[in-house]
Amino acid sequence: MDQIEPFAEITHQAVVFPEGMALDCGRMLRQVTVAYRTYGSLNAERSNAILICHALTGDQYAADTHPLTGRAGWWANLVGPGLPIDTDRFFVICTNVLGGCMGSTGPRSPHDDKPHEPWGHDFPPVTIRDMVRAQKKLVDHFGISQLFAVIGGSMGGMQVLEWAATYPEAVFAAVPIASGAHHSAQNIAYNEVGRQAIFADPDFNNGEYWRLGVIPARGLAVARMVAHITYLSEAALTRKFGRRLRDASSLTLLDDKFEVESYLQYQGSAFVRRFDANSYLSITRAMDFFDLAFDRDGDLSRAFAGTRTRFCLVSFSSDWLFPTKATREVVNALIRGAANVSFVEIMSDKGHDAFLLDEPDFHRTLAGFIAGCADHRGLPHKETV
Amino acid sequence: MDQIEPFAEITHQAVVFPEGMALDCGRMLRQVTVAYRTYGSLNAERSNAILICHALTGDQYAADTHPLTGRAGWWANLVGPGLPIDTDRFFVICTNVLGGCMGSTGPRSPHDDKPHEPWGHDFPPVTIRDMVRAQKKLVDHFGISQLFAVIGGSMGGMQVLEWAATYPEAVFAAVPIASGAHHSAQNIAYNEVGRQAIFADPDFNNGEYWRLGVIPARGLAVARMVAHITYLSEAALTRKFGRRLRDASSLTLLDDKFEVESYLQYQGSAFVRRFDANSYLSITRAMDFFDLAFDRDGDLSRAFAGTRTRFCLVSFSSDWLFPTKATREVVNALIRGAANVSFVEIMSDKGHDAFLLDEPDFHRTLAGFIAGCADHRGLPHKETV
Repeated sequence: MDQIEPFAEITHQAVVFPEGMALDCGRMLRQVTVAYRTYGSLNAERSNAILICHALTGDQYAADTHPLTGRAGWWANLVGPGLPIDTDRFFVICTNVLGGCMGSTGPRSPHDDKPHEPWGHDFPPVTIRDMVRAQKKLVDHFGISQLFAVIGGSMGGMQVLEWAATYPEAVFAAVPIASGAHHSAQNIAYNEVGRQAIFADPDFNNGEYWRLGVIPARGLAVARMVAHITYLSEAALTRKFGRRLRDASSLTLLDDKFEVESYLQYQGSAFVRRFDANSYLSITRAMDFFDLAFDRDGDLSRAFAGTRTRFCLVSFSSDWLFPTKATREVVNALIRGAANVSFVEIMSDKGHDAFLLDEPDFHRTLAGFIAGCADHRGLPHKETV
Repeated sequence: MDQIEPFAEITHQAVVFPEGMALDCGRMLRQVTVAYRTYGSLNAERSNAILICHALTGDQYAADTHPLTGRAGWWANLVGPGLPIDTDRFFVICTNVLGGCMGSTGPRSPHDDKPHEPWGHDFPPVTIRDMVRAQKKLVDHFGISQLFAVIGGSMGGMQVLEWAATYPEAVFAAVPIASGAHHSAQNIAYNEVGRQAIFADPDFNNGEYWRLGVIPARGLAVARMVAHITYLSEAALTRKFGRRLRDASSLTLLDDKFEVESYLQYQGSAFVRRFDANSYLSITRAMDFFDLAFDRDGDLSRAFAGTRTRFCLVSFSSDWLFPTKATREVVNALIRGAANVSFVEIMSDKGHDAFLLDEPDFHRTLAGFIAGCADHRGLPHKETV
């Protein structure tokens, strides 16, 4: 049995909102904590704030060293002084999503009704809109009435779209990257395989693994492995590994033989040291349920009716998790709504993961859109508080 | 804990070869059993035999009722009187592959050195070529010096290609369907996720689950689920399920919500009642290792040098497990080898599974190629023994 890693003990920068919040499912969180990181400085007009939204397994440590892995932030190549999301010019906020496991209220947080126990599997199902509502509390807390931009990839892009739909006046510019207005049946299917792998792990203990001091590490690792394949293109996998063998001299049914296998196993085992299984269930559910057109009679354009937000949508040509057609669907809805929208498909063979990698065309696109919007908005080039 | 189902007790039609066989891994099976089914009648010249090769989770019950599931054979729509593989004209043989669990020698068979125990995880790793060698023994046993045709889809197509490469004089016509000359890195990755899911199941017990009277049902079900997604196209999944909810009224982290989820769970749980986990490991390993160009200095055309076999290759436009480019690679190698080759890409949105479904264009192609070859070969239209 695997011991629970001590990552619950880390103290994250956070704001507690004692008023709690109502959730889409009809239940109420009596208290909400939003953990976050900021980079750069808020200007006197509070007009230079950029909210960055993280993906399924991301967190608020976008641009500084991760406290558990010791690795650079997941967008350290994009967020910093002089980088496309320039912290010399902008005040960048990144929160851990509701349902997450890095300090924001989630399955690891104390249960509302049993304060000496975590929520565990009893944590109410949350939606992407719930995540955005929690972020809005933090943005209000900072006294920011309008974000200069909301930017995110994958599930982060879902949050960007939800921000633009729910709080249009609070979003000057929106950049959804490698994302879409809903999950496809195939995306749901892959998430479901991951969930079943977690359920199949006897250490899952019906979501109450914390009672036994264990984690469902094997199931969570398999979930991570299957998801990881969907993040890479077939070309990227082939280039990285091809059919290279590790060691073909000793063949047994139990050994791994190909480099791609040990890579996946590493991805799986590294992941379980930093992520909570109930959070994985909570967040994948939120992604699967996300459907901006659902309560708008299937008409996605109504989500953005009359919007004054400036949109820049980005897709990657080899992304098969959120293919370009998923982005085009949103672009078409925005155009029907007469929105100010630009759209770029970046030619890349790196698959969905391209939004995290050094793709010069992508970085140029992002830098250009942000700088153009900032100039239009009249933001000075170097901010001093 | 799940009880072992009694499927090991079924008696299958089989031939035992007491001389055994040497395997590619260097080990020796001291005795080999090949379980099989036949349909139609062998003619006096023994010239009308068609060998059908099954896919990963298939078996020899191609055209009659499956003894465990009670369902029609997996190719009952193709093999029978008056069907494209016409049992009024041809003698059709289908074997269970070496490493399988339906009567041919595999991990469930008695261990060579411990006759009161099954091989289990100690079963020697087998290759696609080993599978073909075992089939050749049965074909020789029938006194057939040349098969009229060898036909198979997916892993069955790998066997067809191996037959044509290893026993070119024994194959008059070859039909590899939805297949390729090797597994891609992505295919290996998906197989590896399935294997890891099996390993993660504590009932796997390092492959010796039979000692405890259990089966790693949860892990095997997850393996089946992830594989099943790769058998369907995104369009087929969307058409079948879209984002239809089962019952959204009661949201918890543990419930399945979408129809696609319960479908996958059904596929997983039905599978474990008819398939052995060690066989799943054995056969996926064989697929991953298959690489016809590997010991030919990477030159695939050398696998078919001077061949007189007539080839018809079939791919399906929406198959992303064995995409058309994988088939084209084989076609190009055959053309470089001056082989007699035709190639048809069937337009279908049903994905890899299309080779099992009623695709009229595919059935017409198959019927036409077989009939044309049979006429060329001088086979009469109705056979009498």
